[in-house]
Amino acid sequence: MSESPVPHEPPIYRRIADGLRARILSGELRDGDRLPGENALMAEHAIARATARQALAVLINEGLAVPKRGSGVYVRLFKPIRRHGSRRLSREQWGQGRSIWDADTRGRTFSVDRVEVTLERAGEEVAAVLESGQVWVRRRRYCVDSRPVQLATSYFPAHLVEGSAITLPDTGPGGVYARLGDLGIPPAHFTEEVRARMPGPRESALLDLPGGTPVMVISRTAYTSGGVPVELNEMVLDSAAYVLQYDFDA
Amino acid sequence: MSESPVPHEPPIYRRIADGLRARILSGELRDGDRLPGENALMAEHAIARATARQALAVLINEGLAVPKRGSGVYVRLFKPIRRHGSRRLSREQWGQGRSIWDADTRGRTFSVDRVEVTLERAGEEVAAVLESGQVWVRRRRYCVDSRPVQLATSYFPAHLVEGSAITLPDTGPGGVYARLGDLGIPPAHFTEEVRARMPGPRESALLDLPGGTPVMVISRTAYTSGGVPVELNEMVLDSAAYVLQYDFDA
Repeated sequence: MSESPVPHEPPIYRRIADGLRARILSGELRDGDRLPGENALMAEHAIARATARQALAVLINEGLAVPKRGSGVYVRLFKPIRRHGSRRLSREQWGQGRSIWDADTRGRTFSVDRVEVTLERAGEEVAAVLESGQVWVRRRRYCVDSRPVQLATSYFPAHLVEGSAITLPDTGPGGVYARLGDLGIPPAHFTEEVRARMPGPRESALLDLPGGTPVMVISRTAYTSGGVPVELNEMVLDSAAYVLQYDFDA
Repeated sequence: MSESPVPHEPPIYRRIADGLRARILSGELRDGDRLPGENALMAEHAIARATARQALAVLINEGLAVPKRGSGVYVRLFKPIRRHGSRRLSREQWGQGRSIWDADTRGRTFSVDRVEVTLERAGEEVAAVLESGQVWVRRRRYCVDSRPVQLATSYFPAHLVEGSAITLPDTGPGGVYARLGDLGIPPAHFTEEVRARMPGPRESALLDLPGGTPVMVISRTAYTSGGVPVELNEMVLDSAAYVLQYDFDA
């Protein structure tokens, strides 16, 4: 039916990864357990080292395992955070004093650190999006279950938010969107642009990323009902910690 | 204002990357031109090889440059494809004999190859999502401007689509969504789940990915207005070729 048929039998490294994954998900291998090493996999399956490494890389990329330098690969059970695009940003979330993040972290330990709030001259791209040369910038890191999972940098046009709690480390109940509402410029429309790339060294360090883990980058712009841009938020996410979900109608 | 201030001065590798990017975007360096090599960057900026490599890696990750084995790093101008989540899936797109892809590739050369259509027993996950043990599977690869950019595998419940053009290589005008409409089960609601990870070797080969380029994986499920799942589409995207855009209201 095709000139270039694609083989469907999964390659050996993937079958090995499937087996290890099944042992993790069944509970036979637990959080913190050491996985069979490259040598053990080579001997057990009569495969090359590169193949064994590929099998382990599958689990590392899926966020089910983490390599520790010089000591092997360990099970790391961390249920990915389901980040729900539209629902989490709906008015019913931030209209009632709940933070956006709540929707993502039910039942999980959640923290923010490295909060930094500064007034800055906007870079070229930020100035173009926000139509403003001076911006208030909020930088912070999010952790879930003690693991750093996201770096976020939000930019606000200075002339719109000057004097509000958006310029303070603690923005109060409902967070920055509630404060934008107080100012009479609540967000009505959001655009999110999603990309993926490898992290820079600073991102790797702050997110404690194992080698070979990409990041997802979400650039979110919030607009008022009149189309005025009121926030640009650049988020850098550990790709092994997140599933982004977007729902929409035909 | 913070206990752990984050430095804002961009690191040297990033400033070098910024300079090279500016030369590319200004047109001084053109498509196919060779970028300064590691040795040249080391000499010019008095930096270590690892730093020079990081600077080049930034441009490679951004999709502006591509390494060629043993010969250096070359400019590759490829305007990322803006994949518009909600608009491209709106009824006005597929209701009028236009394919979904049209919206993404205006003015660009577009092709599909490696089309393969088979009847298969569903794997565990697919069966769970589609509530069906037998599935028609459509595999294909998308290229834009002759560059492979996406692998896609769509699954359809066999009992719903049997006998329709969905089981043929050419699905006719409007594609599979128009055919689902003909069958009286048009998609009314979509859920997309987005992840990023490193590619497997088969994905690397089929997408012709340079080393260190992650893929984005989109799992899209289409439901009828009655909530019946009619398609699961697993897409694997070259992350350097795409920006995913999602728009939604507060």
